[in-house]
Amino acid sequence: MPTKKANPEATKPSLDCILRPRSVAVIGASRSNHSLGRKILSNLIDFEFTGLVFPVNPTAKVVNSMKCYPSVSAIPEPVDLAILAIPRDRVLRAVDECGKKGVKGLVVITAGFKEVGGTGAILEEKLRQKILRWGMRMVGPNCMGVVNTDPEVRLNASFSSATPVPGTVAFLSQSGALGDVILSDARSLHLGISMFVSVGNRTDVSGNDLLEYWADNPRVRVVLAYLESFGDPKRFKTVARATTRKKPVIMVKAGRTEAGARAASSHTGSVIERDVAAESLFEQSGVLRVPNIHSLFLYATAFAHVELPRGGRLAIVTNAGGPGILATDAAASLGLPLANLSKKTTDQLRRVLPSEASLRNPVDIIATATPQDFGKALRLVAKDNQVDGVLGIFVSPVMVDVADVGRETILARKTMKKPLLCCLMGRERNRAAVTELLSTGTPVYQYPEEAVQAFAGLVRYTEIAKEPEGKVVSLPANPDLATRAIRRARRAKRTLLTPSEAEEVLGAYGFPLAPSREVNSVAEAIEFAGEIGYPVVLKVTGSEFVHKTEVGGIRLDLRNGDEIAGAWQDMATRLYPEATPKKRGSKFLVQKMLRSGLEVILGAVSDEKFGPLILFGLGGIHVEILKDVSVRTHPLTDVDAKEMIRSLRGYPLLTGVRGSRPVNIKILEQCLLRLSRLMGSHPEIAELDLNPFMAAPRGGTSAAVDARILLHPTSRPV
Amino acid sequence: MPTKKANPEATKPSLDCILRPRSVAVIGASRSNHSLGRKILSNLIDFEFTGLVFPVNPTAKVVNSMKCYPSVSAIPEPVDLAILAIPRDRVLRAVDECGKKGVKGLVVITAGFKEVGGTGAILEEKLRQKILRWGMRMVGPNCMGVVNTDPEVRLNASFSSATPVPGTVAFLSQSGALGDVILSDARSLHLGISMFVSVGNRTDVSGNDLLEYWADNPRVRVVLAYLESFGDPKRFKTVARATTRKKPVIMVKAGRTEAGARAASSHTGSVIERDVAAESLFEQSGVLRVPNIHSLFLYATAFAHVELPRGGRLAIVTNAGGPGILATDAAASLGLPLANLSKKTTDQLRRVLPSEASLRNPVDIIATATPQDFGKALRLVAKDNQVDGVLGIFVSPVMVDVADVGRETILARKTMKKPLLCCLMGRERNRAAVTELLSTGTPVYQYPEEAVQAFAGLVRYTEIAKEPEGKVVSLPANPDLATRAIRRARRAKRTLLTPSEAEEVLGAYGFPLAPSREVNSVAEAIEFAGEIGYPVVLKVTGSEFVHKTEVGGIRLDLRNGDEIAGAWQDMATRLYPEATPKKRGSKFLVQKMLRSGLEVILGAVSDEKFGPLILFGLGGIHVEILKDVSVRTHPLTDVDAKEMIRSLRGYPLLTGVRGSRPVNIKILEQCLLRLSRLMGSHPEIAELDLNPFMAAPRGGTSAAVDARILLHPTSRPV
Repeated sequence: MPTKKANPEATKPSLDCILRPRSVAVIGASRSNHSLGRKILSNLIDFEFTGLVFPVNPTAKVVNSMKCYPSVSAIPEPVDLAILAIPRDRVLRAVDECGKKGVKGLVVITAGFKEVGGTGAILEEKLRQKILRWGMRMVGPNCMGVVNTDPEVRLNASFSSATPVPGTVAFLSQSGALGDVILSDARSLHLGISMFVSVGNRTDVSGNDLLEYWADNPRVRVVLAYLESFGDPKRFKTVARATTRKKPVIMVKAGRTEAGARAASSHTGSVIERDVAAESLFEQSGVLRVPNIHSLFLYATAFAHVELPRGGRLAIVTNAGGPGILATDAAASLGLPLANLSKKTTDQLRRVLPSEASLRNPVDIIATATPQDFGKALRLVAKDNQVDGVLGIFVSPVMVDVADVGRETILARKTMKKPLLCCLMGRERNRAAVTELLSTGTPVYQYPEEAVQAFAGLVRYTEIAKEPEGKVVSLPANPDLATRAIRRARRAKRTLLTPSEAEEVLGAYGFPLAPSREVNSVAEAIEFAGEIGYPVVLKVTGSEFVHKTEVGGIRLDLRNGDEIAGAWQDMATRLYPEATPKKRGSKFLVQKMLRSGLEVILGAVSDEKFGPLILFGLGGIHVEILKDVSVRTHPLTDVDAKEMIRSLRGYPLLTGVRGSRPVNIKILEQCLLRLSRLMGSHPEIAELDLNPFMAAPRGGTSAAVDARILLHPTSRPV
Repeated sequence: MPTKKANPEATKPSLDCILRPRSVAVIGASRSNHSLGRKILSNLIDFEFTGLVFPVNPTAKVVNSMKCYPSVSAIPEPVDLAILAIPRDRVLRAVDECGKKGVKGLVVITAGFKEVGGTGAILEEKLRQKILRWGMRMVGPNCMGVVNTDPEVRLNASFSSATPVPGTVAFLSQSGALGDVILSDARSLHLGISMFVSVGNRTDVSGNDLLEYWADNPRVRVVLAYLESFGDPKRFKTVARATTRKKPVIMVKAGRTEAGARAASSHTGSVIERDVAAESLFEQSGVLRVPNIHSLFLYATAFAHVELPRGGRLAIVTNAGGPGILATDAAASLGLPLANLSKKTTDQLRRVLPSEASLRNPVDIIATATPQDFGKALRLVAKDNQVDGVLGIFVSPVMVDVADVGRETILARKTMKKPLLCCLMGRERNRAAVTELLSTGTPVYQYPEEAVQAFAGLVRYTEIAKEPEGKVVSLPANPDLATRAIRRARRAKRTLLTPSEAEEVLGAYGFPLAPSREVNSVAEAIEFAGEIGYPVVLKVTGSEFVHKTEVGGIRLDLRNGDEIAGAWQDMATRLYPEATPKKRGSKFLVQKMLRSGLEVILGAVSDEKFGPLILFGLGGIHVEILKDVSVRTHPLTDVDAKEMIRSLRGYPLLTGVRGSRPVNIKILEQCLLRLSRLMGSHPEIAELDLNPFMAAPRGGTSAAVDARILLHPTSRPV
């Protein structure tokens, strides 16, 4: 009986036992037409599975005119895969029987496990352990089956009512119901499926396992997924990034309103909103996230059929003005540049098109143009070096045979080495042509903006595939020093570090900090100001003042000793009215005022599921009101750090506007990398804010002017 | 022969002559199956027009087994409407013949007019004049016809190949090709059309005319439009607002990348980007703008069938978790609150649903629930007072008959007085049920997010219909004073007003301005500073410094005479290195420094087509980098001014954050109204910027600290 290994993934058998079995037993195959087991049996047979199929049911001798076995052990031949569609309470025994029989793969359709809680959850854990013990792989429970359309296999072990069309798309769905919808919609869109897996509760086989399995499979050109939650987000980042280097991965992640880091009471916590952790995970792993199933299909239709474009310069050929404008609008709103056609191309177009045609992009061949004219125009623009992709739009005038349009388009496509997407408008009468185009591998859309959206997806993936692989850079640090400060706070039973503890932790990781000192008297304050030079800032430091600005606990730009004394007097009277004059002194901090530079915020919050999330944003207002922040999961690579800064809407502020000098972005990148390392090394830290951090121009002093470090209430295991 | 009147619209005959004719002549009806005239004739007959139809063609005696007349004058009976589908060069003569015959309405299908320029444009102007002269109304030229499905009329005078389904939707399209697509798609979506007009070049009958015609027509429940440009945007605002008070108007406005105010070199000009004028026009007139034809149909399907909800609280009933989550996500992203079901409702649901059902919204009746369960759940949630609308989602499990789902849904709908929208997933096998639901008036969608989007449209229109009607408020002003300052600049052949001229203009309209004076020497500067009190600002004023900040031409927060002298010396040396010491003096301005308050910008730009556009935004950075601005067309109502301010992303900054006091928003509203009045009264002004305007808390001094007024290069007619 194998025990759990350090890396159990590495020792598990390949998913071939589930997706490429040579024989399948259907446990729960029943004579009733209303049973799932019967439907799965029929699907296996109707889809012409290339191996042997054995119905198993103790209460029937014949099912579907086939010999039915009382148990899997009674089957006289080896069984690779067993499908379980039996009542929940019989599942565990059946698994043991399968184990004894030497079955390697299971698909458990049966529901009622973890998703219902209580006994179900307990049973699921027992199931998981049995699977491990027998060294089997299992899809499910609570799923609707698996499909592999490979002609060598032809496995439809699902209860879907739609017969899959073979193709190059691999699909995994965390929702069984949506899985059925997806197979049905894919069929009506002529989207060919390579493999489909309804993962159910993911007790053994996870989405990550499938991504790995599909990454190198030559029959899989594009991976689609519907997810509701991440099982193991950290592994996902690695596995998904490795996969997206090889082929596009497109996902719908539902549950935006629940997932992501929780809105915490703290500062960084409250701006890292719902779903932002998932969003950053997709960003960092190169997965294309789409908002819904409809968009998933728009993308898939393009990725399954056309080559990747070199760039985003789109040429549009249309026989009607309106749809051409709609396509142009869509391109502009997605940031796609319309191609500038070369003079050679427009000259050639002029020779073949009606005289009223508009030869600039979008090329309007006008309503009187023939299908042949359309085909010629498509070929000519595709030849232009300024063009990366072509969109052909045809609205069929009364007397044009749309089949001709389809034929000419297919012929034109054969001459191109660039992606061609099509939009045939007016759904009813065009169905035949649409079917023909799709079945010959030209993506067709109903509306121009859909085609443009799909092209934008192709362009985005082209960029992702080209992106440099980032490195996790370890800048020098002294973690022990930081640990000492953290332990001191722990011993004092504080979760909020004092300013000097925070300074120690940050100093240990090389963060630049504005010179500051906690002072006990006006005289001490003035003395320190003399050392560091005016102007200075006077701040209240008590842990009861979380938001110092709100309570008037910060006085900026004090230019001499008198101003320090005045500010001290004012704040002490207002904020510590109860304190004795003696005690008042201990709660202030004098800091060098950094004048030049832009306020930014660097923050981190530790998420139980996703690990540390690192945040970057512009100034207080930008973060709090405009939510202009970027978030990435730990560990950050150098590329992540660069992108975090560049992806802000307000990024131009950092590069200099209105005569201001650009700030030293390199220092910001380094601080983000330091922050990632710090958070990774000290899991005791719940939240960390450098807010504000003054980003100065190159040569100036960039430094954190306020820091806040909060520990988890009790120490958590690493 | 009637001459042009002051208000020609008022004297024009009703569009009944075109949309409710008793007899129609088809001029250009031909024997050829490939002619548009023949197609229109067939469509008229096939759609069973209730009046008489007369083919007209000098070269045929019989068309379509009907007597064909050589000219319209040869027809022995009165003719209300003539459809012209003849070569361009014969159109004018045919119009005259129609005039003589007493024909009141024309639909000119023929193309080749203004849209091709040159001779075409000249012919179109002649055509326009002939129409006026004969007192006729005309749709077109360059259009694809008109439809009215009223059983009393049954007019299909178009060459569309899709037979319209009668219904309550009126549709106007500026693109003939898209018009055909729209009729075809509407048919396949079972969207019933009341009237359809392809407006073509809008030489006589415009979109505005149709809006007016449809506003009070009881057979029109919702108006849809595809527009590429506004003919008369000012009239549109009035007409559309009057219409949207009575019924929803939904539009696609294409050409986002071309329309709107031009990006001018100036400040306000450059932030009023493409399309923003159109956007504000829609906003102010209550028209729902959607980005594409697909969304137009999503909305129309809901508006055509269901009642308006009282509010946005949506209840979702689903038999599968995934789609429920997708619907919840969509609702959240559209800002729709999910309804909190009352305890009574959840108790009732518990009694009728399977025990594993989730009774909170979204209500998940789970996969084993029957169509009857679905119907019961729909009824129960609809009865809850916390619910404004219901979305039912059904993914059909293998053995459920979808027809039962349709029937139960239709029965449930009959018991409700709230909108019910449906999503039946898995397209292939559901087609029959979808058809039945649609034909009985329950909107059905393919994906949950589509239904939610449509519901959001209903909610938005409910708000629009309830919005108070704004008033154009005329705050006291002295236009003559402003005119004098403008004339002075004109006489001096300047287009940029001097600071004191700008001050005169703004003063005449009651704008608060920070005290300032142009000064000739350091001594004068210090003297004035003494009068107004420190701190002050010193600014360069020369018209060569458009962006003073960039060149270091502003020094803020000068606290005494020494600091003024130092700043003067520095700026004079840098900015006027060539000038003699004597001359240096004349280019500076001293201004009271307003410390407290938030920087906002008020601006206006005069657009040739849309008239004055008024802009409001937050501070320099917000406007320039983050584009957080709102724009409305002149004249502003009090409601417009309120909304302009409240619609900013950064609006919370104005209401006070982080302990800062809320600014005096009333003054900002008044200044916007003043700005509108000013721009309306002085069409010579091309651009006006108050940037920054310091918005102070109530009791403080809100005032413009920099103003810039630019005139049109040459005076334009009002």
